[in-house]
Amino acid sequence: MKEYINKILFIGMGLINSSLARDLKQLGYYKKSHAISRKEETIKKIRELKLVDVADKNYKNGVENADLIIIGIPVAAYESVIKKIIPFVKQDTIITDVGSVKFDVIKSVKKLLPKNISFIPGHPIAGTENSGPESGFQGLFKGGWCILTPDKRQKKNAINTVKNMWLRVGMKVDIMDPRYHDNVLAITSHIPHIIAYSIVGTVTNLELSLKKEVIKYAASGFRDFTRIAASDPIMWRDIMISNKNSIINMLKLFKKDLNALEKAIKQEDTDFLLRLFTETRKIRKDIIK
Amino acid sequence: MKEYINKILFIGMGLINSSLARDLKQLGYYKKSHAISRKEETIKKIRELKLVDVADKNYKNGVENADLIIIGIPVAAYESVIKKIIPFVKQDTIITDVGSVKFDVIKSVKKLLPKNISFIPGHPIAGTENSGPESGFQGLFKGGWCILTPDKRQKKNAINTVKNMWLRVGMKVDIMDPRYHDNVLAITSHIPHIIAYSIVGTVTNLELSLKKEVIKYAASGFRDFTRIAASDPIMWRDIMISNKNSIINMLKLFKKDLNALEKAIKQEDTDFLLRLFTETRKIRKDIIK
Repeated sequence: MKEYINKILFIGMGLINSSLARDLKQLGYYKKSHAISRKEETIKKIRELKLVDVADKNYKNGVENADLIIIGIPVAAYESVIKKIIPFVKQDTIITDVGSVKFDVIKSVKKLLPKNISFIPGHPIAGTENSGPESGFQGLFKGGWCILTPDKRQKKNAINTVKNMWLRVGMKVDIMDPRYHDNVLAITSHIPHIIAYSIVGTVTNLELSLKKEVIKYAASGFRDFTRIAASDPIMWRDIMISNKNSIINMLKLFKKDLNALEKAIKQEDTDFLLRLFTETRKIRKDIIK
Repeated sequence: MKEYINKILFIGMGLINSSLARDLKQLGYYKKSHAISRKEETIKKIRELKLVDVADKNYKNGVENADLIIIGIPVAAYESVIKKIIPFVKQDTIITDVGSVKFDVIKSVKKLLPKNISFIPGHPIAGTENSGPESGFQGLFKGGWCILTPDKRQKKNAINTVKNMWLRVGMKVDIMDPRYHDNVLAITSHIPHIIAYSIVGTVTNLELSLKKEVIKYAASGFRDFTRIAASDPIMWRDIMISNKNSIINMLKLFKKDLNALEKAIKQEDTDFLLRLFTETRKIRKDIIK
């Protein structure tokens, strides 16, 4: 394990990377830090917030001599970024990421990356509906789980370096098969987002007067859905596409169950309703304990 | 408007009525208070918490001389309760309720209630996923909306009395047609609950190992759904049945939109996804402003 990071590079500075940058700076985790962003506006904000020592678009300067590179960008942009890294990356550099989908992404990164470069994919399960460098904050990761999905040929040393970083900012760390990760996340996160986007979209298309009333009286329930459906559009577009297969499979199960519930309401099957609504209450207890 | 309530009667002491009882006691809104519950256990809790002066099962003692009766029970139990009230109710008593469904409920209450008794149906839009007298708290209603759905022959005086009570505990009050109320609530509250119950039910039926992982890594998204799906099972069973028609109609719209979204994911229609996810973000801004 690398006990000390001389130079760290953040590629992308959204909610996750900018929160991580805040925590690691506070901890004195590295000696030098660099951030790369495509957008002038984001670079300006990173500088104003003093999240890193240097922020620019310069891959050569950023990647050269970096011990640890953390990719925090929408998954559809991985390929083009990996291509820009390769010319400047040194042999013992460790590359990791913070993306919500693993299997497809790993496949496309592996095709490009030289075999002697360590790639330790990671997914810190944390976040809010806000995006951009200004929405990050210290302590976002505390108490949450980070899942790493390295393949078998990755060095223990590199895995432990990334694991240690997440432990330092307060996360618990698990190692998991990338396909299994994508299935679990399809249920816990991607399907809930699809549903929330869908129902909030339904309201968007209502006639104006009814839409106004719905917004005015948004009770718990719809209000929670609008929070979820306010998540970063580009990030979620990419998640939907890159985890398509798991999502379509889980959506099939959900639709089957929704149809059964609808039928029970139509037929006034009170036993079915009471049984389902009592069972679902139990899961909450397991989650908040 | 009744400026002063001599005697108030709460029928049922769940989250809503027990929160209201706490607020009104604190405000010195009435001189005497009585609560009726079916269950010995609930009566015991009401007494321990000192929510009212008298708590028992006695309809005669409870209803006699009550100026204001607040029904806070699952809607399927309304008919039997109204029948028990009628023999003891005095001419100028005002009856109101706190139920989430209005049209069907009003129809069945009206059939039973003598015409000279004021019935001012109400729905304070407030709550948590918890139920029972111990889950209520002072200030639950502050800043929220209460919707009243009285018919045209109700006295202004009676409407204003109920309106004033909700204003006193910090709510904003609107008058609405009961059918329209049920349509709005189907979208803002009932459909979100159906969806949450359904997806949490899907997880309940997963194979054990996957279910354990889902609970362990429950991200925002699924975690929010489990909170909604932990709501009172009997109350929600009754809401589903009594607002069946509005719910089935809205569910049709939602399923159509969900199918369109699923198709877009399958076909990797990134434009569709980005457009939808950007539109839904706007509604959040209207709700939290």
